[in-house]
Amino acid sequence: MALPLRTNFKHFFRFIHGFNPTKRSLCAGNEERKGSSRVFSGIQPTGVPHLGNFLGALENWVSLQEQHSSVLYSIVDLHSITQPQDPTLLRENILDMAASLLACGIDPEKVILFQQSQVSEHAELSWILGCLTSMPRLRHLPQWKMKSKVKQEGSVGLYTYPVLQAADILLYKSTHVPVGEDQVQHLELAQDLARIFNHHYGDVFPEPCALLSSTRKVKSLRDPTNKMSKSDPQKMATITITDSPDDIALKIRRAVTDFTSDVSFDPERRPGVSNLVTIHAATAGISVDEALRGAAGLDTGAYKTLVTEAVVQRLQPIREQIHRLRAEPAHLEQVLSRGNSRAKELASPVIAEVRHRVGFT
Amino acid sequence: MALPLRTNFKHFFRFIHGFNPTKRSLCAGNEERKGSSRVFSGIQPTGVPHLGNFLGALENWVSLQEQHSSVLYSIVDLHSITQPQDPTLLRENILDMAASLLACGIDPEKVILFQQSQVSEHAELSWILGCLTSMPRLRHLPQWKMKSKVKQEGSVGLYTYPVLQAADILLYKSTHVPVGEDQVQHLELAQDLARIFNHHYGDVFPEPCALLSSTRKVKSLRDPTNKMSKSDPQKMATITITDSPDDIALKIRRAVTDFTSDVSFDPERRPGVSNLVTIHAATAGISVDEALRGAAGLDTGAYKTLVTEAVVQRLQPIREQIHRLRAEPAHLEQVLSRGNSRAKELASPVIAEVRHRVGFT
Repeated sequence: MALPLRTNFKHFFRFIHGFNPTKRSLCAGNEERKGSSRVFSGIQPTGVPHLGNFLGALENWVSLQEQHSSVLYSIVDLHSITQPQDPTLLRENILDMAASLLACGIDPEKVILFQQSQVSEHAELSWILGCLTSMPRLRHLPQWKMKSKVKQEGSVGLYTYPVLQAADILLYKSTHVPVGEDQVQHLELAQDLARIFNHHYGDVFPEPCALLSSTRKVKSLRDPTNKMSKSDPQKMATITITDSPDDIALKIRRAVTDFTSDVSFDPERRPGVSNLVTIHAATAGISVDEALRGAAGLDTGAYKTLVTEAVVQRLQPIREQIHRLRAEPAHLEQVLSRGNSRAKELASPVIAEVRHRVGFT
Repeated sequence: MALPLRTNFKHFFRFIHGFNPTKRSLCAGNEERKGSSRVFSGIQPTGVPHLGNFLGALENWVSLQEQHSSVLYSIVDLHSITQPQDPTLLRENILDMAASLLACGIDPEKVILFQQSQVSEHAELSWILGCLTSMPRLRHLPQWKMKSKVKQEGSVGLYTYPVLQAADILLYKSTHVPVGEDQVQHLELAQDLARIFNHHYGDVFPEPCALLSSTRKVKSLRDPTNKMSKSDPQKMATITITDSPDDIALKIRRAVTDFTSDVSFDPERRPGVSNLVTIHAATAGISVDEALRGAAGLDTGAYKTLVTEAVVQRLQPIREQIHRLRAEPAHLEQVLSRGNSRAKELASPVIAEVRHRVGFT
């Protein structure tokens, strides 16, 4: 079926500019679409995740696999090379991330866990969507603004990163995308591109909506006004999910708090101790109020011991499982390889449809 | 094997900037590499080529297939969508181009003739090379400068077009690339990217050199200071290789010349009549001097009849063959499909090597 095509790029792009994206990006509260829903999310292979990744995103990933009929999680290694990578380290980091995801509770029987670079349709759809994206559209997106400022100049890959993200999502006709707040603008590009493609070539893609990840924000233990981050140069700032109990105890003991000795939750004025309460509540699986009741009568020093216990107890089985899994790289490769095949099975008819709509076949 | 990796983009790009590209882009005169050479070239599916394409590039393609052991020619449809395309027309144009190439003498037993979009490794390698290309590197390349100026703003695809071109070439470890003068800068990017990749990940790609296409430049029949072009709004300016003898006669009769009646070759001062001499010599397979001897004693009007005869005689069998081939789309699809498989066979081990070097596998 031939569709009327606007043969003018200005018209093409005006269609995007006229649209105010902030309104429609979040998934509606009523989750009626869950039956036919498909969740997609990706994580860069940065090696073993830290506590912030675990509590902020991965626990949410685990619960989503119970709630939705079709879920894909991808280790997005094509994204990771938008910054320079050492190949040997990247290879290790991919397996470390796979082991960590499995140990955190991602079940490859329930979700398709796969490696982005092994499904070439991602790059292919990204090229096609890039031909529907105006250059200025990407200039103010977070990825480029944050990372190119630091490096003064970035690569084409870094600039076009959000287009590949859109391709990741649309390639599976995904409907729900768990994202952090900093990724909402990138998801809006995916929504725009679904709309633009459908407008020009006929309906192919559902417009995916954003499932905001939990509002738990784990902060740096050394500077609780900043997010906990893998790249933090201060080793004491970040708990990795494979840290030993001793390391965890040391890092929490050294965590920056303030000069008030009792425990309260006030992230604005008391970010340090509030961060500990967040970590405590999240790792113990209790509410902030329950955590505060547990802290009654304790000073921050004594409370740190309580928080340490909760973190150690939560992470210990995960840490042990990661070590077991890392001892069997062939098993991890097999899990990914099966996921890659299953992802390819879903991607293949979609890219065939796209190729046809565009006029290649 | 792990290679030392510069983990800093500035260093990365400085490596490019320090290099003066214009020196090394052309293939050396002695063609010693021919034995192990591989030629790659691409043409956009613009439908049936015009006389300028035929005499300027395609005749050269035909002779290269006799000179080199391995030759790939691609109908680059992924490139064509950097400008808006009507899907139905694009589909027809792909088959028209395939028919035209075969009719002009491209022999699918001697070369791999294939459709770019059907070999997904092109887009995949393009993503990887884009991560090694700095954004400013592309800003002054001809593709973007020419086409984005006309449209005021272009797509991401248009901007990153030369990176995909580099991927097209390097994916087959090509050594020789026939290009027009306007494409030399794009080939230099491919050379830079081969060098950058090899520098960071170890030797994978030969540095391809430019085989400048014939210096025959066929001009517009209506404005002989400009190239003959498919998109010329003046129908009388361009001879398509399927034009009927009557159409050819009419267009040449109307060709702009000047007020001097005798025939001479002086492209600077007499562009119109010199263009006719170029066309005459090229289609009759004779030198410019021989063409001028043939024109002795003729005024430009009578000479036009001579030129028309040469063009009609050269194009008639091609036109008939195109019509025969277009009546059998299934055959054309089969030729392309076989070419796609053969191209994929060559591309597949190269992309596997690239994935491994980068650290994905």
